[in-house]
Amino acid sequence: MSAPRPRAAYLDHASTTPMLPAAVDALTAALAHVGNPSSLHTAGRAARRTVEEARERLAAALGARPSEVVWTAGGTEADNLAVKGLFWARRTADPARRRLLVSAVEHHAVLDPAFWMAAHAGAELVLLPVDGDGVVEVEALREELERHPDQAALVSMMWANNEVGALQPVAEVVALAHRHGVPVHVDAVQAVGQVPVDLAASGVDALTVSAHKVGGPGSTGALLVRRGLDLTPVLHGGGQERGVRSGTLDAPLLASFAVAVEAAVADRAEHAARVGGLRDDLVRRVLDAVPDAVLRGPADTARRLPANAHLTFSGCEGDSLLYLLDAAGVEASTGSACQAGVPRPSHVLLAMGVGEDDARGALRFSLGRTSTAADVDAVLDVLPGAVERARAAGLASAGVGV
Amino acid sequence: MSAPRPRAAYLDHASTTPMLPAAVDALTAALAHVGNPSSLHTAGRAARRTVEEARERLAAALGARPSEVVWTAGGTEADNLAVKGLFWARRTADPARRRLLVSAVEHHAVLDPAFWMAAHAGAELVLLPVDGDGVVEVEALREELERHPDQAALVSMMWANNEVGALQPVAEVVALAHRHGVPVHVDAVQAVGQVPVDLAASGVDALTVSAHKVGGPGSTGALLVRRGLDLTPVLHGGGQERGVRSGTLDAPLLASFAVAVEAAVADRAEHAARVGGLRDDLVRRVLDAVPDAVLRGPADTARRLPANAHLTFSGCEGDSLLYLLDAAGVEASTGSACQAGVPRPSHVLLAMGVGEDDARGALRFSLGRTSTAADVDAVLDVLPGAVERARAAGLASAGVGV
Repeated sequence: MSAPRPRAAYLDHASTTPMLPAAVDALTAALAHVGNPSSLHTAGRAARRTVEEARERLAAALGARPSEVVWTAGGTEADNLAVKGLFWARRTADPARRRLLVSAVEHHAVLDPAFWMAAHAGAELVLLPVDGDGVVEVEALREELERHPDQAALVSMMWANNEVGALQPVAEVVALAHRHGVPVHVDAVQAVGQVPVDLAASGVDALTVSAHKVGGPGSTGALLVRRGLDLTPVLHGGGQERGVRSGTLDAPLLASFAVAVEAAVADRAEHAARVGGLRDDLVRRVLDAVPDAVLRGPADTARRLPANAHLTFSGCEGDSLLYLLDAAGVEASTGSACQAGVPRPSHVLLAMGVGEDDARGALRFSLGRTSTAADVDAVLDVLPGAVERARAAGLASAGVGV
Repeated sequence: MSAPRPRAAYLDHASTTPMLPAAVDALTAALAHVGNPSSLHTAGRAARRTVEEARERLAAALGARPSEVVWTAGGTEADNLAVKGLFWARRTADPARRRLLVSAVEHHAVLDPAFWMAAHAGAELVLLPVDGDGVVEVEALREELERHPDQAALVSMMWANNEVGALQPVAEVVALAHRHGVPVHVDAVQAVGQVPVDLAASGVDALTVSAHKVGGPGSTGALLVRRGLDLTPVLHGGGQERGVRSGTLDAPLLASFAVAVEAAVADRAEHAARVGGLRDDLVRRVLDAVPDAVLRGPADTARRLPANAHLTFSGCEGDSLLYLLDAAGVEASTGSACQAGVPRPSHVLLAMGVGEDDARGALRFSLGRTSTAADVDAVLDVLPGAVERARAAGLASAGVGV
């Protein structure tokens, strides 16, 4: 099958990215076989072999052992399993460990489980602050751990922020947390395939991966869990995944997932250099064309995801910009997950100290394997005019001038 | 793409069944489009339209409104959401409602969440007994509800048992529970496509459906939730599915799921008549060939799933039979979910009053849309000899005769 193709200027790969042709092939090939991997007969055992081969390939690509892979239905489920499962398990082992340390710029798939555990499961939620670039302040974590020794259940911090692209201090946080006997969960959904991610080398205890962010299929993900770490299940049932995550495993989706991760990791360096170049070009030209636009996240490109550009345009509503760009064939994002269509300024930008008005004018451009220089050109053809129109509309709705 | 074909004598369709060709086509066609249904641009809105059209089709096929469909990653997740979500929501509204009424023959995807809620969330678990056919005793439910008025959080009972095929008294249980103000969850994973399942007509409050049991893709399912029923989420995050179930929706999988359910429901009556005839033939011929075999579940075929045959063979281990059949190209199941490879007698058979020794010699044959008379012939060619060999092995391992 040929590769899925996005529209000419799809710049929202961080939201979801086209499946890699090899991943499509792996999926469609496996669809031809029937068999539940939990069944004991020949068809079941064949499906099980497919699942276990996928487990080995995914593990090898991410520096894990096969036994450290827990399949899930995606990043959100993996994050829920990590935050809730680790908290419940840790607190069961030691009731004093009630403090749940989560960075203020996490994805909602980490933040919302954390808020829920605070409201319903006795967690004391501690939001770790970030600096103006969106990078977690390690000193604040150090103070928290020293002020409340033996009370932290876990730390959850993403590898790279999904909105502003800031790479997080994973090594420092892991070293610090481990000195205090605290496990670290890292949501690496945006990082895999863009920066090196290795479970063993990083020392991370639990790591979230999503398939559809790296060219794999939807509804598929994994939590990599260091050996010996206890997790209370979130989904109970048939006892699949050694009882940590129940639910029938799907061999075609998992085979496709492994192929996508393997491919994304294999050409990561080349890919990062290529999209990094396109991204740098995009940022430079946008700042030239719209001089008061502000790049958010680290200015040092070595400290941010190569495929990410995030800018704010004061006096604009990000949604208006998004629709104006879309009407001209350029697809981008306001950067925050759209929740029920209510436009709220991003919690990430607010945590970085960006003012609410500036935060409303945010646009994220995220590149992927199908991105080309023509996509960047398309942005530049459209964006300056869109900013002008959005500003005029903003002034109009504010009752100024019209 | 041509339809996936199982091996010649695949008789384990209740475990998983080949995808319908139309469902494969819907999946592969949708893979060609990129777009996160939560994204606001054109690609995102196209994906959203695919998801909402799937929602309308699935709802229409099952007597629900589109707004009553909550997508999940499969039957297990839907069961967890129903049991935990309903219990938490009901108990939050009224702390006295702690009793969790669950039939003793539920799938582990209901039983295990219920056990967990008893151990960790203050539930008082009440296992409702069944009769010798595996049918829930409505009188026992009546007594329970009258003895503990205003204390039941919910009732969870499957539409049809996955092992012995017994249809459950859904209408009576719903009427009785509703008289006491208690909502009813029904796991209809095995029933859809075999017997009529209609959310509105049944009065059921929450209904579990799985895609891969009816010719749809893996890792895909839904909980149909009657309007106005509160559910506490199990997976928190981006707020998809009106906050009840977070996680990126996958348009290709959901489109394929809807096509499969629609097709399975559309030709249900014909399919039921055809596989029912094959099943009757299989049961009659097995009982002729192995006279002391015992059919489990209702003898009245109107009271069991048409595609299900379940028999016990005294003096045999079901696993041995399964492997002997498999070696001869016949794929069946012992009927119980295999959990970590530990052969334990089925909780369903034990709840029906079957002795432990008899329960060990269980085999389930389940038919599907690709089943033919040749599959039944293949069973009869192999089974009598396999029973003889398994019995001889059983005697040998018991130290008798050898």
